Amino acid sequence: MAKDPLPGPGVLARLPARRPTSQDSPLVRPWGHAVMHDLQRNKATVIAFYELMFNACRPAEAVERFVGDEYIQHNPHVQTGKAGFIAYFERMARDWPGKRVEIRRVVAEGAFVVLHCRQHWPGDQDYAGIDIFRLDDAGRIVEHWDVLQVIPDHAENPNGMV
Amino acid sequence: MAKDPLPGPGVLARLPARRPTSQDSPLVRPWGHAVMHDLQRNKATVIAFYELMFNACRPAEAVERFVGDEYIQHNPHVQTGKAGFIAYFERMARDWPGKRVEIRRVVAEGAFVVLHCRQHWPGDQDYAGIDIFRLDDAGRIVEHWDVLQVIPDHAENPNGMV
Repeated sequence: MAKDPLPGPGVLARLPARRPTSQDSPLVRPWGHAVMHDLQRNKATVIAFYELMFNACRPAEAVERFVGDEYIQHNPHVQTGKAGFIAYFERMARDWPGKRVEIRRVVAEGAFVVLHCRQHWPGDQDYAGIDIFRLDDAGRIVEHWDVLQVIPDHAENPNGMV
Repeated sequence: MAKDPLPGPGVLARLPARRPTSQDSPLVRPWGHAVMHDLQRNKATVIAFYELMFNACRPAEAVERFVGDEYIQHNPHVQTGKAGFIAYFERMARDWPGKRVEIRRVVAEGAFVVLHCRQHWPGDQDYAGIDIFRLDDAGRIVEHWDVLQVIPDHAENPNGMV
């Protein structure tokens, strides 16, 4: 196999060509987004949204205050759109009283805010989660992806998973 | 319960106070990092590292070329440090020929690069993964967290998990 080139702009230039859909291109190239986002504002919005809908169990109010014209959902357990999101987290609020998310890290660029979290589900195991939110040009949340994993009892290293 | 305040700088200011360790504070406040990172360079480094170690099955070379003085590992299945990382991915290369990662999205801020990926493990299910890498001031990788989840056969929405 040929030696990989050292990293440079060429590595990044390959990404949009590999994922040519209109949905993906702004995500792999958030630095090329047409609008200059206020990253501090976007971070504050996403943190407030997550805490209001998850910890305070008020998903309908969180959507009203922080979500834009749509809410494109990629979590496979939740329907897309605002109504599906609200129904899902109203059910979670009923079924898992005391559930709580701790936000540990926040990384933002362009239209995107990433949260690294630890979720407590009383009576079940804790989960590590990383959420990616996309915000519209007005700073309202319009799309969400996440990945969740049970934090195992044993780890090969002492550093903590999240 | 009192109404949550609208999001603002106060929301972010609370984060470091909640996670006062030296390890966490630069992560929740990457914009306050003392060094101005070249985000394009950092992204290219992380993408080249991941492709070399995972797809090209050359983890020792990837560490030599792209990792700094240390490699602090948070994935609970892998030992911390360079030697543990190399041993783990040499075993994966032997046990899972044809494994492949597709990088779908990249978000970077300060010392951090986030990759949203789809992992193919031939003979097993595909996984969605989000990785967070921290780079040192010279742009070399020194720390890694991730969260992995099997992509289910059925989803409540048609949008795809990753």
